[in-house]
Amino acid sequence: MKKLSGKSHIKVPGFTFSGISAGIKQSKDKDLALILSNTPAVTAGVFTTNQIKAAPVQLAMKNILSRKGQSIIINSGNANACTGPQGLKDAIKMQTTAASLVDIPTDLMYVSSTGVIGKPLPVSIIVKSLPLLVSSLSISGINDTAQAIMTTDTYEKVFSKKLKIGSKIGSITAIAKGSGMICPNMATMLCFIVTDISLSYAALDAALRSAVNQSFNMLSVDNDMSTNDTVMIMANGALGNKTITQRSPYYNSFKKTLNSITYELAKMIADDGEGATKTIEVIVTGAGSESDAISVAKAVSGSMLVKTALYGRDPNWGRIIAAIGYSGAAIREERIEVLINNIKLISKGTGTKNEHKVQKKLEDNRIVITINLGLGTGTARALSCDLTEGYIEINAHYTT
Amino acid sequence: MKKLSGKSHIKVPGFTFSGISAGIKQSKDKDLALILSNTPAVTAGVFTTNQIKAAPVQLAMKNILSRKGQSIIINSGNANACTGPQGLKDAIKMQTTAASLVDIPTDLMYVSSTGVIGKPLPVSIIVKSLPLLVSSLSISGINDTAQAIMTTDTYEKVFSKKLKIGSKIGSITAIAKGSGMICPNMATMLCFIVTDISLSYAALDAALRSAVNQSFNMLSVDNDMSTNDTVMIMANGALGNKTITQRSPYYNSFKKTLNSITYELAKMIADDGEGATKTIEVIVTGAGSESDAISVAKAVSGSMLVKTALYGRDPNWGRIIAAIGYSGAAIREERIEVLINNIKLISKGTGTKNEHKVQKKLEDNRIVITINLGLGTGTARALSCDLTEGYIEINAHYTT
Repeated sequence: MKKLSGKSHIKVPGFTFSGISAGIKQSKDKDLALILSNTPAVTAGVFTTNQIKAAPVQLAMKNILSRKGQSIIINSGNANACTGPQGLKDAIKMQTTAASLVDIPTDLMYVSSTGVIGKPLPVSIIVKSLPLLVSSLSISGINDTAQAIMTTDTYEKVFSKKLKIGSKIGSITAIAKGSGMICPNMATMLCFIVTDISLSYAALDAALRSAVNQSFNMLSVDNDMSTNDTVMIMANGALGNKTITQRSPYYNSFKKTLNSITYELAKMIADDGEGATKTIEVIVTGAGSESDAISVAKAVSGSMLVKTALYGRDPNWGRIIAAIGYSGAAIREERIEVLINNIKLISKGTGTKNEHKVQKKLEDNRIVITINLGLGTGTARALSCDLTEGYIEINAHYTT
Repeated sequence: MKKLSGKSHIKVPGFTFSGISAGIKQSKDKDLALILSNTPAVTAGVFTTNQIKAAPVQLAMKNILSRKGQSIIINSGNANACTGPQGLKDAIKMQTTAASLVDIPTDLMYVSSTGVIGKPLPVSIIVKSLPLLVSSLSISGINDTAQAIMTTDTYEKVFSKKLKIGSKIGSITAIAKGSGMICPNMATMLCFIVTDISLSYAALDAALRSAVNQSFNMLSVDNDMSTNDTVMIMANGALGNKTITQRSPYYNSFKKTLNSITYELAKMIADDGEGATKTIEVIVTGAGSESDAISVAKAVSGSMLVKTALYGRDPNWGRIIAAIGYSGAAIREERIEVLINNIKLISKGTGTKNEHKVQKKLEDNRIVITINLGLGTGTARALSCDLTEGYIEINAHYTT
């Protein structure tokens, strides 16, 4: 697990970053962040499908129709959701003030918020802190940014990869927050990705949607979808490569790299799941279709009974097969095979005698459940974590 | 809450009941139960939609095509699920032996099992105990039966109502088990209903389906649907009334009474939810349609974040409105009103200043969340309980 602190060695040409404590959080932890590209960037985004959308999400969804962006300001400690017309005014105030301070057009500034729902945004505190936020911008400030967007996360989440485009070497770097993986917390799943590689909007958007579908969307059964969930990517083209389109030979390698980055971040979120002691990865093969594989992966990874059993180091395979059974996927009970950390637990739909071996494996803090439905070629994987008393503790007393 | 013990004052003409300890459970608690009608009864049933069905469920689903039944034998401590061809043989052995002992045709005997999945049914222990089970049959034995079907339940669940049919007074009596309400536990939701009132199969079946839809099906978001879930009703006509059809003037009062019985039992299951300290009832009004109302009631009652907040006595209305938002129902944020135990918490889509008043109410162990969407006439209600460390404890260590 990449746990970075202090100034980072990760730099993305043409981007600067900052993160400071503005005093929104009572804890005085960092709570205000800024990402700035030197030039306008091609920008794509995926936002919550919750009908209740936070004010900054409403604003961002309108802005992104231009397919352009240059800067993102993010606060933690307050979601600015369910805050009515005043919430939208506050988000716009944040946007316009920040944009004028970094001297870019207002509509190239995006706003994102995460934290408690329904409390008025302390916008005056934020505005007062903007000069410090802007003066703190640095090419090596990405870890400060990653820290400032955290809520119940226990460590910042940054992941970066280099990518060869012809003779040039570009990079994709992403930060994320979210530790309610059991269900994307009201405290929100946020991810911001920056790259110096030049891409067309269509290519950028398609690659982003593919990556999100295979990572963050497989991290949850959408039990508690947030009002603020946001994934955004900005491509500023500082690398000077020939713009990548969906037909370009480099599109697939870009997409693959982006996929692996978001999957790693999703894993970090699972690993940092509220109260979690184990990361759970569910790999499904042999499904009749990809969508069947997805259904099974989500049902098993999202089952509270599976999560609690794994926490208790209980090789309770009945709960796994029951979840497969209610997933909605086509199955044949007598063909189902399940392995846990490479030990076969279910063969031909019923238990093997390996419970004790599996129980030993359940002491690991990484659990991989491999399910073969024995029907076709559909595959999928999903991420999750165990469900513990720690989750209850965190969520029973979050606002009070 | 009706907590009965010892011999019951509840009797249903023409039915006898027993419940004994056969030794299936290590605890030596009662684990084998029998319900017997003096005569063949019109019989309807609703079974799990999980594709993985326990052997006794497979058997019962075949049997019930005859629309007749006379007896039900139930064991707890072992679900006889995922037990392959041997499981089906064991269920049939239980069925035939029990039927021959009470001297009825085999296909009028139903088998039901609940408990751990995937362990071979200890059928010889069961068969050995059958003579005692049969000799224990008594008109006042329903509480023994209710106790013998329990798994993690902390008390037996029995509910009975009388009903006037013309000049005669009949009764409907039901027993249920299940304390994993958070999601119907692998340990299964079972409910058996008996009545001396004569009904046609069509009327009985329709009334049962309506009752199940408004009670047990609103008790869960189907997160962990069991392989064994079963609700059965037997009407033996001992009352001697003119058989009730769906056109009969008494059909609606029968249906209404049955509805109220299953709803009360569902409430008991919520109240006895694994680790629960509070029963949660979500009442939705003003939805654009009934199905929208159902979606909202299920989303809010099933939200882990709402459940944990209520446990923590945290009037975190943001989690309630977020669940309404992702329910899929048509909503207008600015019209949403939410009350908790009659105190308004959300008005016009945003928080009132009543958080402290609500927080006091959250000390009650019965929480009623009333949601008015302000759009139409659709209504629904759902049952749930809070999510606590107790749930984790019970489910992390159930089989070991």
